[in-house]
Amino acid sequence: MTPAIPHQQTEETGALQEDDVSLIALENGCITSPRGFSASGVACGLKAEGMDMALVFSETAAVAAALFTCNKLRAAPIAVSENHIACQQARAILINSGNANACTGARGWQDAEMTAKAVSAALHIPINHTLIASTGVIGHFLPMEKILAGIQRAVADLQPNGGPDAARAIMTTDTRPKQMAIECRIDGKSCRIGAMAKGSGMIQPRLATMIAVFTTDCAIEPTLLREALQNSVNKSFNVLTVDGEQSTNDCVFILANHQCGNPAIRQKDENFRVFQRALDQVAVALAQELARDGEGASKLITVTVQEAATAEEADRAARSVANSLLVKTALFGRDPNWGRVISALGASGAQLQPEKIQIRFAGIVVAEKGQAIDYDRIAMQKALQEAEVEIEARLGIGQYRARVYTCDLSYDYVRINAEYHT
Amino acid sequence: MTPAIPHQQTEETGALQEDDVSLIALENGCITSPRGFSASGVACGLKAEGMDMALVFSETAAVAAALFTCNKLRAAPIAVSENHIACQQARAILINSGNANACTGARGWQDAEMTAKAVSAALHIPINHTLIASTGVIGHFLPMEKILAGIQRAVADLQPNGGPDAARAIMTTDTRPKQMAIECRIDGKSCRIGAMAKGSGMIQPRLATMIAVFTTDCAIEPTLLREALQNSVNKSFNVLTVDGEQSTNDCVFILANHQCGNPAIRQKDENFRVFQRALDQVAVALAQELARDGEGASKLITVTVQEAATAEEADRAARSVANSLLVKTALFGRDPNWGRVISALGASGAQLQPEKIQIRFAGIVVAEKGQAIDYDRIAMQKALQEAEVEIEARLGIGQYRARVYTCDLSYDYVRINAEYHT
Repeated sequence: MTPAIPHQQTEETGALQEDDVSLIALENGCITSPRGFSASGVACGLKAEGMDMALVFSETAAVAAALFTCNKLRAAPIAVSENHIACQQARAILINSGNANACTGARGWQDAEMTAKAVSAALHIPINHTLIASTGVIGHFLPMEKILAGIQRAVADLQPNGGPDAARAIMTTDTRPKQMAIECRIDGKSCRIGAMAKGSGMIQPRLATMIAVFTTDCAIEPTLLREALQNSVNKSFNVLTVDGEQSTNDCVFILANHQCGNPAIRQKDENFRVFQRALDQVAVALAQELARDGEGASKLITVTVQEAATAEEADRAARSVANSLLVKTALFGRDPNWGRVISALGASGAQLQPEKIQIRFAGIVVAEKGQAIDYDRIAMQKALQEAEVEIEARLGIGQYRARVYTCDLSYDYVRINAEYHT
Repeated sequence: MTPAIPHQQTEETGALQEDDVSLIALENGCITSPRGFSASGVACGLKAEGMDMALVFSETAAVAAALFTCNKLRAAPIAVSENHIACQQARAILINSGNANACTGARGWQDAEMTAKAVSAALHIPINHTLIASTGVIGHFLPMEKILAGIQRAVADLQPNGGPDAARAIMTTDTRPKQMAIECRIDGKSCRIGAMAKGSGMIQPRLATMIAVFTTDCAIEPTLLREALQNSVNKSFNVLTVDGEQSTNDCVFILANHQCGNPAIRQKDENFRVFQRALDQVAVALAQELARDGEGASKLITVTVQEAATAEEADRAARSVANSLLVKTALFGRDPNWGRVISALGASGAQLQPEKIQIRFAGIVVAEKGQAIDYDRIAMQKALQEAEVEIEARLGIGQYRARVYTCDLSYDYVRINAEYHT
């Protein structure tokens, strides 16, 4: 997966900018590409088959930041990690798949605490330098014997090239691991950012999303790290929707272990800008990968709303289109159904004037001034067979834009979620 | 279809009341069951096959009220009907299926005006006593020759027992017509209310929904008729969601032609209460029918949230569950997946405390204090095979409740909407 995103949205105006920062995608990049990180993935029997526990470890002290779901019924590990992140440092992140440890009451909390404690004991680090996350079925207690045995093996298996195993171990209904790494230059030093993430249903994050882990060997102050993470998440996972759902277990972590040798970033200078741009790049590429591999998805759909009256209305209009089951099923059927796009725009509550609206599918204008126009149907047919389709709506009202990533809705989404039994 | 709704929500507290009003469902009841109404359904070539134009006519003057979609990109006929309803009277309602006359600009408006004019000319009634509605594909101009020829035939075909034809002619992806009639006693007179409606995708009304027509031979003042209609719609179509979509063409009409001989209802007295209850009954039964026949639906799902902090939060929580694709696919798969219900509640933003939440599927408690409990799995399996399933969530926070009607999400929803091409 190559992080080739030509444009980035600025936060203030939503306008697109050319990317002027030089970034290099690392071949086979992963969570252990930055210096000083090791990782492992092991099978401890939470899932019927395959690896289900991932551990990411920084060999030295690392600054840390995290974002958590704003679902009010948060899982126990989320609460534990939120407590631990308060110290702004962490060295280990343990993630299990197969069981979400959500809706498990006081015992779930105790199990999460015990998990973090076991990790910190095995790694000889303070308990609050351990972050944990769980993903999987809701409402079941963690089988702690399996968890504790798994932790021992995950610690023993830590490898400097263990990133791919970790990325595989956090998968649930994902069809493939999502991971990458990028290199940028900060103060003359080559700084790396690695990442892994898992989807792939129950996704429309508002604060953070699903589970994503970033590692970097850059040196940066904790408050700036937190701010950079929030900025990147706002442009990536927070504008991703697979099915409009927000999980009890969404979280995003980042560890920065200052192994690349740069003087720590302490203000919003050029170095911060480069770091931010690199982090954005990784986050957006991963978010697109999550949409592309959304449950049952056959394509990545990018919805761009332009010329809205306010940034909030641009966002609302884009989300309304991206969450429209009718738009998503139309694209599964390879139909440029702009009527459904218009209807979703109209239902969003954003300010609109029908006679000003232009709709494009895959760059081809299909509606002008709110009405049908002729277009090249053969070119369209070809474009809608591609693995990526962009829907653009120009509202002609103001100057704000928003972009949301989603996927189509297929039979397989229904199959996956109807066959998945508690 | 028998309108057997045991409970009604009161507007103020959301509390359930026993129904103390005597109502009789009429066998083969329809839009022409009330006295003095005739109707027809004809094929004028808008759809590939079958009837696609319905006309409902009151032989005498009738008080009228209507509610329209709040989608900002409303279709031309909606705008025309909204102008006409200002006079609070109407005698004819013409509805075509197969073409929505939406996103058709100035020409669409002219076509809608011309349609209304042709109806009024053929029936010798003032143009503003004609209401019109369209449903079908967006972005195509009405074929006016077919429409005008169809109107002549629809007028010629008007029959006192034409209700079933009209109900069939307004169908799009509906698998069956929805119609019914009910009788109540007002001031010693037998008063009838008839109705028809069509769904069945693009449905999550906020103001009005889809297309529904009510007729009654009751005499009632226009402002009270409007108020009764709004009340009934709030309890029925406005708490219905098939796919979270809101169409450009949603509308609900009612004609009251005072043919049953009651002195006109002029205040909110006992007679108004009986009329309201009867109208509620018909509206809720039709809304349930729309959910039951939602695109691809295999079952009607009623989501009831109780003990919420406010009425608004109860509504928001119930809608969040009802619109959850994960909940809907789980029920298609006959799985009592309370974890997905909890997650949807948590994502709704309503005030919640996990340890106070109880979840029931089909009356069987599956989660208590926010955690799994044992339940009779054989009884559950049986219950989830039924054509109707109720999900109840008690939040344990306050005293407000809300109820939302929806359906499951099946392969057929995807098929219908992926195969439907512009």
